[in-house]
Amino acid sequence: MTVDTKSETRPHTLIASDRVEGTAVRRPNGETIGTIQRLMIDKISGNVAYAVLSFGGFLGIGEKHLPIPWAKLDFDPLLQSYQVDISDEELAKAPSYAADKDFDWGDRTQEQRVHDFYRARPYWGV
Amino acid sequence: MTVDTKSETRPHTLIASDRVEGTAVRRPNGETIGTIQRLMIDKISGNVAYAVLSFGGFLGIGEKHLPIPWAKLDFDPLLQSYQVDISDEELAKAPSYAADKDFDWGDRTQEQRVHDFYRARPYWGV
Repeated sequence: MTVDTKSETRPHTLIASDRVEGTAVRRPNGETIGTIQRLMIDKISGNVAYAVLSFGGFLGIGEKHLPIPWAKLDFDPLLQSYQVDISDEELAKAPSYAADKDFDWGDRTQEQRVHDFYRARPYWGV
Repeated sequence: MTVDTKSETRPHTLIASDRVEGTAVRRPNGETIGTIQRLMIDKISGNVAYAVLSFGGFLGIGEKHLPIPWAKLDFDPLLQSYQVDISDEELAKAPSYAADKDFDWGDRTQEQRVHDFYRARPYWGV
């Protein structure tokens, strides 16, 4: 069957992954922190566990990746970017890793630290 | 705090969105159907609603996009691709749309048809 593409398009609740990737992340005051590098998806549940925020560095040197729980990202339609309320001090202290090293996603201890840092409920249940 | 990158890496349950994008989709017999174009994510829940399968066409003409529920994709580590058991007849009948037209993700009636087609439980609950 063909999909009816003439039906009136209504606002929808879905966003494309390749559209999220590369979207800017700002503070509530509008200041840019970085961009979303990718999303990390739990294979079994199909849940987005984290957005990976890419920030810092200069000409590719010293760039950091910061995992941010999906629930902590608010989309600002005016600025067309995600909003996270996080200070420079928190960014410095937050769990992060150099862009050329893999975060050990299998280490549940590290994941608990990330969630504790954001006071977010773990995506894998209590 | 810095993340301990020396800890032993264990198998993990997360996959990166930019790694899923572009991954081949095959039938159980190994035959390639197409590739994953993108994932459609429910903004509120952070759940992957569909993977969008790109297939068919020639030199970019006549390409089709087929939404496939995440739960229907099985990853084959041997072939490093996703596996969906779907025949050419089913592909022809399945809800799809030309690659240059937007599927109306806001049309819940269409989404119900997609889920009925795959006999999958709707991601938005019963």
